[in-house]
Amino acid sequence: MENKCKKICIIGLGYVGLPLYELFSKHYDCIGLDISQRRLNEIISEIEGPKCLTTSYHDIKTCDTYIVAVSTPINKKNEPDLSGLIDICRNLSSVINTGSLIIFESTVAPGTTDEICVHLLEEGSGLKLNTDFYVAYSPERVNIGDSVHTTKNTPKIISASCLHALDIVETLYSSVIDAPLIRASSIKVAEATKMYENVQRDVLIALANEFANFCSKENIDIEEVTNCAATKWNFAKVYPGLVGGHCISVDPYYIIDRASQLSITLPLIKTAREVNEYKITSVANRILQLVNNKRGCRVLILGITYKPNIPDCRNSKIPIVTSILKYNGLTIDVYDPIADKEFVEREYKIELVSDHEIMLDAYDIIVQMVNHTVFEDINLNQTRMYYLKDLL
Amino acid sequence: MENKCKKICIIGLGYVGLPLYELFSKHYDCIGLDISQRRLNEIISEIEGPKCLTTSYHDIKTCDTYIVAVSTPINKKNEPDLSGLIDICRNLSSVINTGSLIIFESTVAPGTTDEICVHLLEEGSGLKLNTDFYVAYSPERVNIGDSVHTTKNTPKIISASCLHALDIVETLYSSVIDAPLIRASSIKVAEATKMYENVQRDVLIALANEFANFCSKENIDIEEVTNCAATKWNFAKVYPGLVGGHCISVDPYYIIDRASQLSITLPLIKTAREVNEYKITSVANRILQLVNNKRGCRVLILGITYKPNIPDCRNSKIPIVTSILKYNGLTIDVYDPIADKEFVEREYKIELVSDHEIMLDAYDIIVQMVNHTVFEDINLNQTRMYYLKDLL
Repeated sequence: MENKCKKICIIGLGYVGLPLYELFSKHYDCIGLDISQRRLNEIISEIEGPKCLTTSYHDIKTCDTYIVAVSTPINKKNEPDLSGLIDICRNLSSVINTGSLIIFESTVAPGTTDEICVHLLEEGSGLKLNTDFYVAYSPERVNIGDSVHTTKNTPKIISASCLHALDIVETLYSSVIDAPLIRASSIKVAEATKMYENVQRDVLIALANEFANFCSKENIDIEEVTNCAATKWNFAKVYPGLVGGHCISVDPYYIIDRASQLSITLPLIKTAREVNEYKITSVANRILQLVNNKRGCRVLILGITYKPNIPDCRNSKIPIVTSILKYNGLTIDVYDPIADKEFVEREYKIELVSDHEIMLDAYDIIVQMVNHTVFEDINLNQTRMYYLKDLL
Repeated sequence: MENKCKKICIIGLGYVGLPLYELFSKHYDCIGLDISQRRLNEIISEIEGPKCLTTSYHDIKTCDTYIVAVSTPINKKNEPDLSGLIDICRNLSSVINTGSLIIFESTVAPGTTDEICVHLLEEGSGLKLNTDFYVAYSPERVNIGDSVHTTKNTPKIISASCLHALDIVETLYSSVIDAPLIRASSIKVAEATKMYENVQRDVLIALANEFANFCSKENIDIEEVTNCAATKWNFAKVYPGLVGGHCISVDPYYIIDRASQLSITLPLIKTAREVNEYKITSVANRILQLVNNKRGCRVLILGITYKPNIPDCRNSKIPIVTSILKYNGLTIDVYDPIADKEFVEREYKIELVSDHEIMLDAYDIIVQMVNHTVFEDINLNQTRMYYLKDLL
């Protein structure tokens, strides 16, 4: 296995894989693989310069390094859905050769890489780990919509199936990443690290949500309380909110599932999930109160993405809020000029209203659910205007 | 009410009141009051220079500003015990005059200052708030044993019964504190702020304890996982441990009690308390496992304070661990050259062993429960040596 003249393949060109593809393409012979032709078309239309993209595993046979950046979602029962990752491992097993290095960046429960991915790779290829091929795990830390913390400038945890592979991984990432690389002593430690990061975030937001509920009863402002508390040296400044997206609201279920296999319970992590999920109903109820539970009232919802200023609506909780409102007889329009319109229609059966359809006076109340910067430009100084932060 | 030539009284000269007394004494005519003559004797023997100390409210009648820094503990049922604070308010009500300012620094549930303290002061004095006298609330942020974050250099939240009083409080504290003063919009906001700070700490440690349990089952090191995760920009670096002392393990019960009065539940805060309290039993069980539950085994416990390098043993969880061990037939010696020996005997009925009594070879195992720096000097490179962090 050579350190130089590598040929790298990035598998999965979403919010994690695409930045990796862009970084590695600058320095290496690099090919991007995504099973979705639509996604490749998007990338071709959005990003300038020559690109080497494919949907076929046949085209990546000559690579020596594979970086897997597929998403690891949950199913309707909140159970880990590893089907995407498993498919990739099966496909890769027919492609890898002696000397291949496969690096996983997807968030998984501790043990998954060793017990599932390596098993599939060995089984399908007939090759043996650390004799014929190597595996590494380096969890992504991408924060969508964050221009401050990027793939290039964020410290990165690295781990591998043996020290030889870890050295290669370190050389590889250090050629494209400016921040420190941190060597974990095992793949399991690196997997647990990513889990801990996101679970802690979920727990902190759950506490903020619970405290917001308390503050609301006390008629004090949770935002002011948070800002005051954040003047203490060790306070983590976290605001309440609906927890959506593909990480914070998903990853805890991976570790809860793993723990149940180990016959241990995680009461705090579970309770945090429940508190955050309950907030959805609670927000819907607050909106119903605003219109005195009057059926037929018209409500304009501003924003449907899972966080501000990004089009991503995966696992957004706002469609659930609108469902509850509709179920209770309200007429709901949703306006979001930034959201992925097609995704919203396909996934949530919600047709977003367009600019010229909005007649602000036609609504009983308007509720801004997401703080898109574009909303600041709309003149909304109305008495019937409400903000999510006041409903939490 | 004059801003200058103030005469200040600090009530309660514990770990919060004493630093305040020392700071204010440098700039003002200042008197310290503590109901315990023993405490006053301690202060006289420990601190140099002239001091004006008393146990009698009669001696503080000529003061115009009173700073209350009494501790607010819980009773055996984990309910708030405000008796110390209530006594002070009753005593102060017979002492205060027109123009008096009473500043509370004790941690209390939101609403306590307005609903309990002000009520007692008005009732006993016949004076009227904001007409005759003023009240303020500025929560202490003392971290015992921390020489980096001190009363003098830590940002301080201030709040008061009216803007006039808030201005006076700001002038007063800014004359002795070098860090920013943050004006909260109400006393309730300031009370909630302190609660949130400590509740968040308890929840973060509970998560660390829960994750430590998970990591232990996975045979990975929670300390390494924590250090790796802490390389992410928004991770709060918190290690697992037994949560003792008079703040973190106590304050959550104040807010749980208040919430139940408001008919709301705080499932996350409650679960966090349970997780942290359960850790005590869990550690005891791990120690029992180490000696194969063999009755008659001799165990040396190193450290009994609630955190390293301080004598404070209030609400330490180690006496509970030793009780469980003794109940299960082990013979326990506890060595702690730093701990408040008298307090430990009085409060926990534990007689600490002295230097010359320790025969290291006489013990089946030695468990270091607190990381006092002095323990580093003892030669403990033994196979029968265990550390709390490996038992969490």
